[in-house]
Amino acid sequence: MVKDFFYVTPTALIFGKGVIKHLPEVLNKYGKRVLLTYGGGSIKKIGLYDEIKSLLKDFEIFELGGIEPNPKYDPSVVEGARLCKENNIDVILAVGGGSTLDCSKAIAVCAKYDGEGWDIISGKVKAKDAIPMVDVLTLAATGSEFDCGAVISNTALNDKRGYVDGLIFPKFSILDPTYTFSVSKYQTACGTADAMNHVLETFFSSPSLEVNDGMMVSALKSLMKNVKVALDKPDDYDARAELMYVCSLACNGILSNGNGECGWPMHSIEHALSAFYDITHGAGLAIITPRWMKEILSEKTLNRFVVLGKELFGIEVNNVEDANNVIDAFYKFFEGIGIPMHLKELNINEDRIKEMADHILEFDCTVGPQMYVELNKEALIRILKECL
Amino acid sequence: MVKDFFYVTPTALIFGKGVIKHLPEVLNKYGKRVLLTYGGGSIKKIGLYDEIKSLLKDFEIFELGGIEPNPKYDPSVVEGARLCKENNIDVILAVGGGSTLDCSKAIAVCAKYDGEGWDIISGKVKAKDAIPMVDVLTLAATGSEFDCGAVISNTALNDKRGYVDGLIFPKFSILDPTYTFSVSKYQTACGTADAMNHVLETFFSSPSLEVNDGMMVSALKSLMKNVKVALDKPDDYDARAELMYVCSLACNGILSNGNGECGWPMHSIEHALSAFYDITHGAGLAIITPRWMKEILSEKTLNRFVVLGKELFGIEVNNVEDANNVIDAFYKFFEGIGIPMHLKELNINEDRIKEMADHILEFDCTVGPQMYVELNKEALIRILKECL
Repeated sequence: MVKDFFYVTPTALIFGKGVIKHLPEVLNKYGKRVLLTYGGGSIKKIGLYDEIKSLLKDFEIFELGGIEPNPKYDPSVVEGARLCKENNIDVILAVGGGSTLDCSKAIAVCAKYDGEGWDIISGKVKAKDAIPMVDVLTLAATGSEFDCGAVISNTALNDKRGYVDGLIFPKFSILDPTYTFSVSKYQTACGTADAMNHVLETFFSSPSLEVNDGMMVSALKSLMKNVKVALDKPDDYDARAELMYVCSLACNGILSNGNGECGWPMHSIEHALSAFYDITHGAGLAIITPRWMKEILSEKTLNRFVVLGKELFGIEVNNVEDANNVIDAFYKFFEGIGIPMHLKELNINEDRIKEMADHILEFDCTVGPQMYVELNKEALIRILKECL
Repeated sequence: MVKDFFYVTPTALIFGKGVIKHLPEVLNKYGKRVLLTYGGGSIKKIGLYDEIKSLLKDFEIFELGGIEPNPKYDPSVVEGARLCKENNIDVILAVGGGSTLDCSKAIAVCAKYDGEGWDIISGKVKAKDAIPMVDVLTLAATGSEFDCGAVISNTALNDKRGYVDGLIFPKFSILDPTYTFSVSKYQTACGTADAMNHVLETFFSSPSLEVNDGMMVSALKSLMKNVKVALDKPDDYDARAELMYVCSLACNGILSNGNGECGWPMHSIEHALSAFYDITHGAGLAIITPRWMKEILSEKTLNRFVVLGKELFGIEVNNVEDANNVIDAFYKFFEGIGIPMHLKELNINEDRIKEMADHILEFDCTVGPQMYVELNKEALIRILKECL
């Protein structure tokens, strides 16, 4: 039976070449005191930093640069929250990819809380308020620009948490596909793998509405086709535009309303991996995907492979044996876009696999019995070993 | 090239059986003085009126019943705005189908305006504020529960206007598929035809993103399959649920972001028809659909028929001749779900066809040269004559 659901996404998307010109009117809705957040400096290389500074001459801008991939609670979130409090910030302007956006969302709530911010991120305390956040996206991947989630790592605890809260929806997301022209082949591939995984996580659920199956297949097809175009021709506007837009849709929930609980098991596993080893999220997911699929393949899950096989690869699936061909096709696809498909290539060996399995079961309830397929400790270890 | 777009839908969907229980907490966000609006009384027949009154014991409720199909500016909108002003209404609770919702959206803005409300609906004056609106949907059709449009008829002017304004998004839409179990076969079919048409209007555009093509095809497939189940078994929860959800998606814009201007030509024609003859909107659209398709079929539009033919009917389209088979298949589909496919069956003859064509060109700019296919007066007359 179709599941009950609650759905809302109040974020406004402003999409197109040159739409950055709307930034001053957007920020003016919230005030003049802006915390500008960004990552390692690519926004300076592509001229975006200067353009924004020039557009925002009438604003008072404070800055937090250097936000890390797999953004860290300490120092980034802590420092950002301090800057907001000390400078009475009206609005946070996050310019970058998912890491910068996620970090800024966490800053937005921590800045409005007097206690230890990690209590909010880890779910111990419920946030009551957040500073408004606006973003300018430079990487098509996580979908953070169109959702209310933020994934934050706490290095001291080897913990990586997905924090979900309606308070942290961006108010506006400014999406200009030309900002992604200079994204490296590797990051383009990893971003696409991330978005594909967002779709696949929710595709593997029961029930899955027919309309959702069709929309999710369509998103996957689009990602798989357009990433190849973008890898071949990095400044192909239409390919970059469709990648950017589909990445936004992929993590938003709109493709899976009414579906059963899926539990995001591949993300649970990957969050442990990147908490322990700080690897690129999309690469980790691509490596996990075929191994997780092999683990959960059964008569119960077969119908999911039937649809994916037919629609994505033209593979007819009549039984479990056939489904292995679909799994292999995913493996080859990820390999074909340049993702290393073994953890060993990322310098990860089996030393901490059991520790990671324990970590997943301790911190993540998303692989439990209420989900599409339950994963126990042995299953998690099997998957991680196969990933090596 | 992918078109620039702005997209936002702040409406929250609360979906499932029994979700009406959340109504008091939802309305409490806005205040205690409620204008309850509804149509011809079906909400009393299914017990929903009593249930709402019982749930809202702690609220002060004022009522506007008897809202017409193709809701009228005068008396319904005028009367509703007067009630809001005189009683200092905090929130409008619309319970019904698209007509009740549209009328309530118009009331929401007119109640906050001191001049003649029609000036706002007709676009002469820009609204500055609106009373918050919450709805409980009882008919899967128009998608008004998830968009910011309202179609209002002004009988005195033979005018039917589509009013679009971000101010009139519902705050919350409460969607319980069981409320649609008692919808008649005819209204179930017409509601589905309406939603199908919303998808088809935007499907016929250039460019159309591949991801959008896939999502739109998926929506059409779902509507066409589930309407048959619901006609056969009116209390099939899953079929009613998927119809309700897809109707909400169909008019929301989320299926066609980045697509070229389509102009909603079939709606422009139908709005003239129902302004002159007060027919059921979905029936008018079903009648117009194949005739409009015949009119615009050409080498330029062929690729749209290729996709629809293959995905919906298994018809291979290689040329314009083949595309006629797709058009015939749509005709037969609508006929098969019980929609009268000739205007004569709705007691409409050719007397006012020229007048309607003039009306469309005067009031609707959606068939002009900037659109996917331009329709001039002769084309409009041809389409309407074919509909007889």
